[in-house]
Amino acid sequence: MTYCVGLMLNRGLVFMSDTRTNSGVDNISTFRKMFTWHVTGDRCITLMTAGNLATTQAVISLLDERSKEPGDRNPGILEAESMFQVATLVGGLLKKVIASNADTGQVADSTFNATIILGGQIGAGEQRLFMIYPEGNFIEASYDTPFFQIGETKYGRPILIRAYDPEMSFEDAVKLLLVSFDSTIKANLSVSLPLDVHVYEKDSLDLGRVYRVQADDPYFEQISTGWGVALRSAFNELPPFRFPEATD
Amino acid sequence: MTYCVGLMLNRGLVFMSDTRTNSGVDNISTFRKMFTWHVTGDRCITLMTAGNLATTQAVISLLDERSKEPGDRNPGILEAESMFQVATLVGGLLKKVIASNADTGQVADSTFNATIILGGQIGAGEQRLFMIYPEGNFIEASYDTPFFQIGETKYGRPILIRAYDPEMSFEDAVKLLLVSFDSTIKANLSVSLPLDVHVYEKDSLDLGRVYRVQADDPYFEQISTGWGVALRSAFNELPPFRFPEATD
Repeated sequence: MTYCVGLMLNRGLVFMSDTRTNSGVDNISTFRKMFTWHVTGDRCITLMTAGNLATTQAVISLLDERSKEPGDRNPGILEAESMFQVATLVGGLLKKVIASNADTGQVADSTFNATIILGGQIGAGEQRLFMIYPEGNFIEASYDTPFFQIGETKYGRPILIRAYDPEMSFEDAVKLLLVSFDSTIKANLSVSLPLDVHVYEKDSLDLGRVYRVQADDPYFEQISTGWGVALRSAFNELPPFRFPEATD
Repeated sequence: MTYCVGLMLNRGLVFMSDTRTNSGVDNISTFRKMFTWHVTGDRCITLMTAGNLATTQAVISLLDERSKEPGDRNPGILEAESMFQVATLVGGLLKKVIASNADTGQVADSTFNATIILGGQIGAGEQRLFMIYPEGNFIEASYDTPFFQIGETKYGRPILIRAYDPEMSFEDAVKLLLVSFDSTIKANLSVSLPLDVHVYEKDSLDLGRVYRVQADDPYFEQISTGWGVALRSAFNELPPFRFPEATD
């Protein structure tokens, strides 16, 4: 499994992904699931993947044009004129890779499926955030749905719904994502540290901050322990329940 | 979908279930998913169901021996000598009902599948809590796994993991379950109020408290609103994140 979240804030984009891949619980590995392309002053594009690892690695290789000699590479992702074009390019590649592996043609629950979160900004365009489906089509984040999750999305969703605020600082957004990841990691063995973090500042057209939360990260430990304590104290602060008979 | 939780406390058992059933989002109904049998001084048995409604209703009817004349009914669930016998009886009926509907024989992902939480106490036996699978076999709650969830289990699990305490009062347990249900209801349209609650006091061999949380329950509204506020305040109390560069 996998857990990745892309958040759109008024001040920029925040991405977080785990790094655990597994093929059964007895075959786990660490692979990067976050990929960033940037040309200072022109664009910054981040992509996170969930699903079949062969599929997602093939998509990334194709985006990087790794089939060409290093000198001949001029990948489309660095030439596209808008984020919409990039999403179309990525969606097309994703669909193609899945189809090339699926003997029976494209089916919705193919083993080779993968889902992608794509976000960034190009030139004078707005910052944008997309979720790309295995079928190659995509949806875009909006004011009403300002974040996307892929992979094991459910455990970490309640806190995102409750605490997300489009005006929040980057630091608070990273903290929020760490809490969401902690809930997921606690509940699903196939999601795990290290975590990759990328923070893109709106209109900077620069890489921004890239950061890896290692397995022994002291701040993550603080959050993980502190969140249990904070949740219990929040729970205790709620008004007590009384059985109806007792209130009559 | 459905959400049901059975909690084992040192002082007794607490059950909560929602009442929404759906066959597509355009066909929703309210059905009871919690069923209790009790004979004061002898036994109290509670059963909650998730899955195919035709299957679960058939199991309940068979347990009640509704195929017999009312005067001839003497259901096994009131005669079994231990909770283990009851679990075996229910598991056997469940497996039989599923098999009778599945043309292709028993398969793990059958459309007719259902899962059951069963708990209670009989005579001099201990209070016990079981989860019964569509295959008819079952597992029992223990000190390490003191609660079972069925249906849409993920959204409401983090708070259960963090705040459950075997020593907690019945009132706190109901409050905890309401928070867990609130998170689930907020995230999944197919789980909804009213909620059924049953609290069984250990060694009482009596019905205990049975309660329905209606759609406009003022306490549930308080919990639902208050939990959002409490979560955000718990989040704010956690130590702030700083990017590594800023701490150098």
